[in-house]
Amino acid sequence: MKNYDEWAHVFKLDPNKEITDEALEAVCESGTDAIIVGGTDNVTLDNTLSLFARIRRFPVTCALEVSDLEAITPGFDYYLIPSVMNSQHVSWVIGHHHKAVKEYGEIINWQELLLEGYCVLNGEARVANHANAQTDLDIEDVVAYARLAEHMYRYPFFYLEYSGKKGPIDVVKRASAVLEKTKLIYGGGIKNAADASEIAAYADVVVVGNGLYENLKEALKTVEAVKEHKCR
Amino acid sequence: MKNYDEWAHVFKLDPNKEITDEALEAVCESGTDAIIVGGTDNVTLDNTLSLFARIRRFPVTCALEVSDLEAITPGFDYYLIPSVMNSQHVSWVIGHHHKAVKEYGEIINWQELLLEGYCVLNGEARVANHANAQTDLDIEDVVAYARLAEHMYRYPFFYLEYSGKKGPIDVVKRASAVLEKTKLIYGGGIKNAADASEIAAYADVVVVGNGLYENLKEALKTVEAVKEHKCR
Repeated sequence: MKNYDEWAHVFKLDPNKEITDEALEAVCESGTDAIIVGGTDNVTLDNTLSLFARIRRFPVTCALEVSDLEAITPGFDYYLIPSVMNSQHVSWVIGHHHKAVKEYGEIINWQELLLEGYCVLNGEARVANHANAQTDLDIEDVVAYARLAEHMYRYPFFYLEYSGKKGPIDVVKRASAVLEKTKLIYGGGIKNAADASEIAAYADVVVVGNGLYENLKEALKTVEAVKEHKCR
Repeated sequence: MKNYDEWAHVFKLDPNKEITDEALEAVCESGTDAIIVGGTDNVTLDNTLSLFARIRRFPVTCALEVSDLEAITPGFDYYLIPSVMNSQHVSWVIGHHHKAVKEYGEIINWQELLLEGYCVLNGEARVANHANAQTDLDIEDVVAYARLAEHMYRYPFFYLEYSGKKGPIDVVKRASAVLEKTKLIYGGGIKNAADASEIAAYADVVVVGNGLYENLKEALKTVEAVKEHKCR
């Protein structure tokens, strides 16, 4: 198992999307640091378990990004808990956590939980609407969220989420500059080695999600691109 | 200066309330572990500075509980930052923090900041209305907030706020039972030694606020009552 603070590249697989055994094998054996299982729509216990069982055949680190209380199941190496810092509704900042802990507080293994301070920045993405995110932010707003994540809340992760399109590199750069202990995750629009390499210059962790469903071959090249960057 | 994790008794002074020099001296020399400066209404830079300057003549630890961005001033030993965990509006959970850090992020000394996970429980109190708190909670809700504060957010403090009336001892007891590293602060309706002693059996820190404006002599006796309890 690869410890979360050593991650540089991760693939994010959506339980609600189809993936062939061959493609899944290529993803799991790609040399990526971890697979995150997570999605926005129709994440159920059934499709989560089904995907999890297929991934578990490979020795790759596997984390569940918890989006639905009903879809939590034991056995993952980590449980990533998003807090949407720029949501306009308390349920996405703390409410879902409270509900989960009220129900499962006594049996949770807290060591496996990792908080992600999300900053959702693509207003056209499903997740922005779903989580009622205020995406009309300037770069100083984002920097302030990064500082909150690092110093005030001491989250393990700060997650710049552009979901579906690539965000401006300046935002990644500025957020990176104020983070030390908190790891910067970047997700959104990474489809090939060049995309990944550009982001890896600043983000600690590059997430490749949709890209692998669109062009697997190109998506697989992001692993090497990120690793090369980190080994320089 | 007394480190925050050694506090057992604190007095909370409201910048918007009058206190004579004699009373202030008695409070500061009472043996309490710290004075918290904070209030809900009409906290201004002027009245905060004025109270602070008077307290600083004494060698007691002094913390500012930040409620208004305009009333922040350097020189306090600690800055307590409330996050109202059961607020129904994001501004009380994270919004005010974001605004403050956007403005002052570069000059903040993060070592002096202490997060307080507030659970505001007296629906009739000004603060509940002000912070739009959902006070209709059962004991399991409160326990879940305590667990969130301890394990998920790792706040230094979890604050049971009954502001103006005494809360049920069972709530204090149950919250206390799930907290280890996070210190349990209790505030609300503590007017005399008996009140303080009862709460000190479970809370790490007993706050005496309004009581000292109502009957100073009785309020001062709470210091000894808490200390006695902790030394048993």
